Amino acid sequence: MATERIYNFSPGPATLPLEVLERAASEMTNYRGSGMSVMEMSHRSKVYEEIINDARERLCAVLGIPENYKVLFMQSGATHQFSMVAMNLLPRTGRADYALTGDFATKAYKEAGKFGTINIAGSSKDRKFAYIPQQDALTLDPGASYFHYCMNNTIYGSLWNYIPDTGEVPLVTDASSCILSEPLDVSRFGLIYAGAQKNMGISGLTVAIVREDLIGSAPENTPIMLDYRTYADNDSLYNTPPCYSIYIMGLALEWIENTGGLAAMQKHNREKAAIVYDVLDNSKLYKGFIDKPYRSMMNITFTTGSEELDEKFVKASVAAGMTNLKGHRAQGAMRASMYNAMSREGAEHLAKFMREFEKTTLKGLYYDVQNKNAQQN
Amino acid sequence: MATERIYNFSPGPATLPLEVLERAASEMTNYRGSGMSVMEMSHRSKVYEEIINDARERLCAVLGIPENYKVLFMQSGATHQFSMVAMNLLPRTGRADYALTGDFATKAYKEAGKFGTINIAGSSKDRKFAYIPQQDALTLDPGASYFHYCMNNTIYGSLWNYIPDTGEVPLVTDASSCILSEPLDVSRFGLIYAGAQKNMGISGLTVAIVREDLIGSAPENTPIMLDYRTYADNDSLYNTPPCYSIYIMGLALEWIENTGGLAAMQKHNREKAAIVYDVLDNSKLYKGFIDKPYRSMMNITFTTGSEELDEKFVKASVAAGMTNLKGHRAQGAMRASMYNAMSREGAEHLAKFMREFEKTTLKGLYYDVQNKNAQQN
Repeated sequence: MATERIYNFSPGPATLPLEVLERAASEMTNYRGSGMSVMEMSHRSKVYEEIINDARERLCAVLGIPENYKVLFMQSGATHQFSMVAMNLLPRTGRADYALTGDFATKAYKEAGKFGTINIAGSSKDRKFAYIPQQDALTLDPGASYFHYCMNNTIYGSLWNYIPDTGEVPLVTDASSCILSEPLDVSRFGLIYAGAQKNMGISGLTVAIVREDLIGSAPENTPIMLDYRTYADNDSLYNTPPCYSIYIMGLALEWIENTGGLAAMQKHNREKAAIVYDVLDNSKLYKGFIDKPYRSMMNITFTTGSEELDEKFVKASVAAGMTNLKGHRAQGAMRASMYNAMSREGAEHLAKFMREFEKTTLKGLYYDVQNKNAQQN
Repeated sequence: MATERIYNFSPGPATLPLEVLERAASEMTNYRGSGMSVMEMSHRSKVYEEIINDARERLCAVLGIPENYKVLFMQSGATHQFSMVAMNLLPRTGRADYALTGDFATKAYKEAGKFGTINIAGSSKDRKFAYIPQQDALTLDPGASYFHYCMNNTIYGSLWNYIPDTGEVPLVTDASSCILSEPLDVSRFGLIYAGAQKNMGISGLTVAIVREDLIGSAPENTPIMLDYRTYADNDSLYNTPPCYSIYIMGLALEWIENTGGLAAMQKHNREKAAIVYDVLDNSKLYKGFIDKPYRSMMNITFTTGSEELDEKFVKASVAAGMTNLKGHRAQGAMRASMYNAMSREGAEHLAKFMREFEKTTLKGLYYDVQNKNAQQN
């Protein structure tokens, strides 16, 4: 009764490599001769310890994480990090800089305001986040505890096209929707955090990569699971971690390694994005929302300019074996999310569909105009 | 290469019904014709909405949760609830009562102290938590915001043998290691919380069942993911929930329903516990740690009285196809955790092994004594 798998353009949780799913299924009732599922393992057992250590080491290897950073496995999503970053890092000076380039960046800013004085260091709200403020447009506070930005904006589909230079002020970034999509110089950052459900695996796991000197500034009365120390001092095993999500992350990282690492991911993702952006750039129907230099490789947003046609597009795309192409309610229209696991065939399938939909639609519009003219004459 | 499954007495994450694992494996690459894995679904999609609603409804049905309660799906474990309970409920009067009957109960007490004035309303620390303070031994503060206790103590293996009467003061309980093991009158409680990785499914999901009038007292500057309102107002979908853990909970609940509900679970768990306690009660070798009236059905702790023999027991149990019988480091010795999914055969296998180990050991000790006597003569 199982139908074939469909092309799933979900912004996250998102499509996973089929190999990862098949491996997880095959190991479900008996993980490599252990006599049990990964789901059933004590998080204090040797067999599980290997799984969590393996996942951590693979992440360090794939991303090239320097030795003076800690990798922390947490829960409750990037939204939880909006609070944790502020509670742990703001006490250093009491002030922080935030760039507002999308909805999540703005939410992070608002949350941080509960814990200190926050300066808006840059914003693209004036044009509905269609661009990224460049270095010379940033208003930087040299006494800031950190500078926070959201590297890839999932909802609007923009990507920071540079890493800001903030001098001695540590850079903190929400990399939820672009981590592992291409190489990244971790040493430029004080803290990188990301929900796992896009390029790293599945929901329920949030990863932070924190420079060691930034851990330990949280006040004594910080809730225990909100203090980075709790995770750093206990290898993320102070209490039961999200065991299965960590296991899936390990499998996803193994898949990245076997596929050629982040350089190969970058090539793969650039090619897929080019296939779809090429349709937009040569279209008389579609219009992208984001200025060219800041277009995301992961989330491509576009519209026909007509709400009715956008709806028709989404409906027709489902009939054509695709799903989750409807845009976020904040932006509307269409969004194609294509993380690492989206195949080149998926991008080509979408591009072909877009061209056909455009052709049919323009023909229909042409006949509509002809008919109207005929009726008027 | 897959060996058979073994008897896994892990305190959590713990053994799951084989049917649940097999179902999850069979639906892994294509959930019921959706063309994708549950892991890949947008948490805002119709297909996932059905899964989360189904899990919530099944929990309400199985536990008989009254209409004036909200079921919240959270993350970061029961330890996170130690903070959340205090941050959300303490502002009502600024004071709360805590009973100390084990390690987690004590951790909850210490964490709450960060947020208000906490009174120790009862304790069994004097005898290493071997009993549960009875109603007349509790020192209750009628002005407390709530009374907190840990219903089943996973580490020491004790269970509250009654529900305390605290008058108008709401009862709050950590039911992580006994929820769904037998029927429970939810209406007696203000708030019940539990990590899912024992009887409800897998780690990464924490469930709270909260009486509606207790939601909404958290101060405005509470971290967003620590305010019960965030979950209650958004059906636990403010941000991406632990999607897969919720799905597994749904399957575990379906298994409970199909097995006869909580009445059947209680019978099943009582019988299994009796099989093992019967060995203890008729043994010349083993000694349980907990006074009889307070013994847990879920976690059975015992010792031979000799560290060396305890170690030998654990080692021999592995050779006999069992695992995770080593006690928690706070108690040492042995602990057999037998949640819903542990089969009667598992309990019988353990009991048989215990009797055989005792027989061999006593015989060995007898010969040792004989030899010693012979040498002395």
